[in-house]
Amino acid sequence: MAALRLHFRIQPVIMKIDSVDFFYLSMPAILDIGDGSQDALLVRIGAGGKQGWGECEASPLTSIASYVCPMSHSACKPLKQSVEGMPINGVDDIHRISLAVHENSSDLLQADHTLSGIDIALWDLLGKHLQEPVYKLLGYKKAYPKLPYASQLFGRTPEETFEKARSTRSSGFRAVKFGWGGFGIKSPKEDAAQVLAAREGAGEESLLMIDAGTVWNEDLNSARERLGTLYKSKVYWLEEPFVNGAIRAYNELSATRPAIPLAGGEGCHSFVQAQAMIQYGGLRFIQIDAGRIGGITVAKKVALLAEKNGITYVNHTFTSHLALSASLQPFAGIEKDGLCEYPVESKKLAKDIALVEIARDAQGYVNVPENPGLGIEVNTNALKKYLVDVEISVKGERIYYTPEF
Amino acid sequence: MAALRLHFRIQPVIMKIDSVDFFYLSMPAILDIGDGSQDALLVRIGAGGKQGWGECEASPLTSIASYVCPMSHSACKPLKQSVEGMPINGVDDIHRISLAVHENSSDLLQADHTLSGIDIALWDLLGKHLQEPVYKLLGYKKAYPKLPYASQLFGRTPEETFEKARSTRSSGFRAVKFGWGGFGIKSPKEDAAQVLAAREGAGEESLLMIDAGTVWNEDLNSARERLGTLYKSKVYWLEEPFVNGAIRAYNELSATRPAIPLAGGEGCHSFVQAQAMIQYGGLRFIQIDAGRIGGITVAKKVALLAEKNGITYVNHTFTSHLALSASLQPFAGIEKDGLCEYPVESKKLAKDIALVEIARDAQGYVNVPENPGLGIEVNTNALKKYLVDVEISVKGERIYYTPEF
Repeated sequence: MAALRLHFRIQPVIMKIDSVDFFYLSMPAILDIGDGSQDALLVRIGAGGKQGWGECEASPLTSIASYVCPMSHSACKPLKQSVEGMPINGVDDIHRISLAVHENSSDLLQADHTLSGIDIALWDLLGKHLQEPVYKLLGYKKAYPKLPYASQLFGRTPEETFEKARSTRSSGFRAVKFGWGGFGIKSPKEDAAQVLAAREGAGEESLLMIDAGTVWNEDLNSARERLGTLYKSKVYWLEEPFVNGAIRAYNELSATRPAIPLAGGEGCHSFVQAQAMIQYGGLRFIQIDAGRIGGITVAKKVALLAEKNGITYVNHTFTSHLALSASLQPFAGIEKDGLCEYPVESKKLAKDIALVEIARDAQGYVNVPENPGLGIEVNTNALKKYLVDVEISVKGERIYYTPEF
Repeated sequence: MAALRLHFRIQPVIMKIDSVDFFYLSMPAILDIGDGSQDALLVRIGAGGKQGWGECEASPLTSIASYVCPMSHSACKPLKQSVEGMPINGVDDIHRISLAVHENSSDLLQADHTLSGIDIALWDLLGKHLQEPVYKLLGYKKAYPKLPYASQLFGRTPEETFEKARSTRSSGFRAVKFGWGGFGIKSPKEDAAQVLAAREGAGEESLLMIDAGTVWNEDLNSARERLGTLYKSKVYWLEEPFVNGAIRAYNELSATRPAIPLAGGEGCHSFVQAQAMIQYGGLRFIQIDAGRIGGITVAKKVALLAEKNGITYVNHTFTSHLALSASLQPFAGIEKDGLCEYPVESKKLAKDIALVEIARDAQGYVNVPENPGLGIEVNTNALKKYLVDVEISVKGERIYYTPEF
């Protein structure tokens, strides 16, 4: 019997990834607006009888194709080759898979977006397996509450923006962000009216952020023309004046007076891109979407780099509360990074993904879930009606079809 | 009659894009080696009875998916929405389409790789329409001959590398590049033996370049350990010691002695990425793949920026002579940029794409084709046997199937 027990001890149960399923979900109609919550790509990974869930902030069909496509060469392999059948027993295994995808798919551009959902699902799975919330697996002792900012699109008129801001404040938000909806394209005067309306609606005490959504590409002058307005309205940050990666334009704007703190980085799909924005862009806030940058693994690395560089890390999240939990984990334990983006205008599909949402507490703060993994139960029953039927065949062989929940 | 003539004058013939076809081609077997010529994605665009051809350096299935996928939101649209039905009568129209894709698909990561083939096909089409080679449409008065360097993989042993280098020299090449095949992973001593063998085979007079293929990720020390060897072997440049975009690592290595000129940039899929490499990376050579960065339009912009910054522009091309012609156009008229990467180890598929290859002249130089467009006739008859049958269906509707040549 002793020998038998020893046998069990030296041969621990090895969990291997035995299923990876992609679910493409969509609202019945997709509108031509900047609302990224109109569709979703969920990833479900199974190992050892447990399941983890992740979400890609990405074009669903394109990401599915990157997972199943035939190999092109040694640095352009489908993601499945680096994932399926791999051991998943500890944090090192997730790092190994992340590294393998980066090596094996470095010439497959879509790979980072696809990896994001896979990586998130792996952390969720591992957390459930080890009965720990993800932030603890990441090495954080505790999770600090974050002050949520209500993230929304500008109204069509200043009056509408004023109403949106006022109603957001009445529902208890102390921070609010407006963006898109033509801001930066209209005249500086019209933009000023929108920003002023947002400030009036939000009240003097609220943090107010403005999201230019990369509208000025690399055009410093268009950005500079609006700095006076933003300064007068005490804007807490100006987000994405330029396209992601335009580090010299960011840097030069950051040195322009009146100084408005700059935020950016949501478009980063690799660590080195975020690193360049942090080291050269003159940013005060680095905004990372865990659903784009390669998942929680890469996002955490950016959070630590930001801390080292005295820059505030903020999540980018505009979709579900599954994505919200995933995006909170990487900086959960960094007390000074006290803000979080909080989706308030998501479509019903995005709301239906989590059975229970991450609600604000009595003080208006958001707390990272303490349940194992991401602490989010995916409401598969509610999602069936959004499932998009997809089939991909190559050389007569069906290499993808929509799985069942 | 005068009125009628006037009528014709004020209503010129407008060409519109009336077909866009993607052809996924593949060798019968894809080997797990760093040879990117094992498959190909060709794009054929038709307008006004004329056809243009382009090639994406990309995962074919993933790029096709990005072209036909359903819209996710206003900044994540399939590429076809920015291309099909658009007017294509002059250079401005190509710029407009490029801009539209960047705006409408900025959240679709694969978009830049897909746009590349489309943009190349549009320049080819317009050149044929206007009866001009593409470089003239780009504003260059003449095309300067480029000294080709034979681009190949290291042999499995130093002896094999020596033989490859020797045979390349005997076939008239005065510049040669070796890379991949485990370089940088093996010990510095083994790497030194490979580099030395390459130099001995190539002879003292040849330009010798070494391509590390991003093997050291961001690890400065691994790169520094090899600088002595590279210096002794008079290496003309060290290519991609680090992952694309790791600008601080590039910059720090460029400041290390002995100084080896650094080359990089083939992974750039946007103008601002190349710009950051040029402005901050300490590079001496910026290598752009027109099949990845967004086509000839974006590549030309990089060539001009490189010129302004005193950095040499070189094409990155490892596949067909269609891709080679496309990659030569952006810097055809810049005399000081006198080198070009020249594929010598392409698989038969890549060789079969162009009916006539871009041969070296009696002096060993490569001349940009003077025929209209890219000056390359695609050998569709030879390609039929490589065609990969693909079908993609969404919601029961077939949104892509392999077209006929």
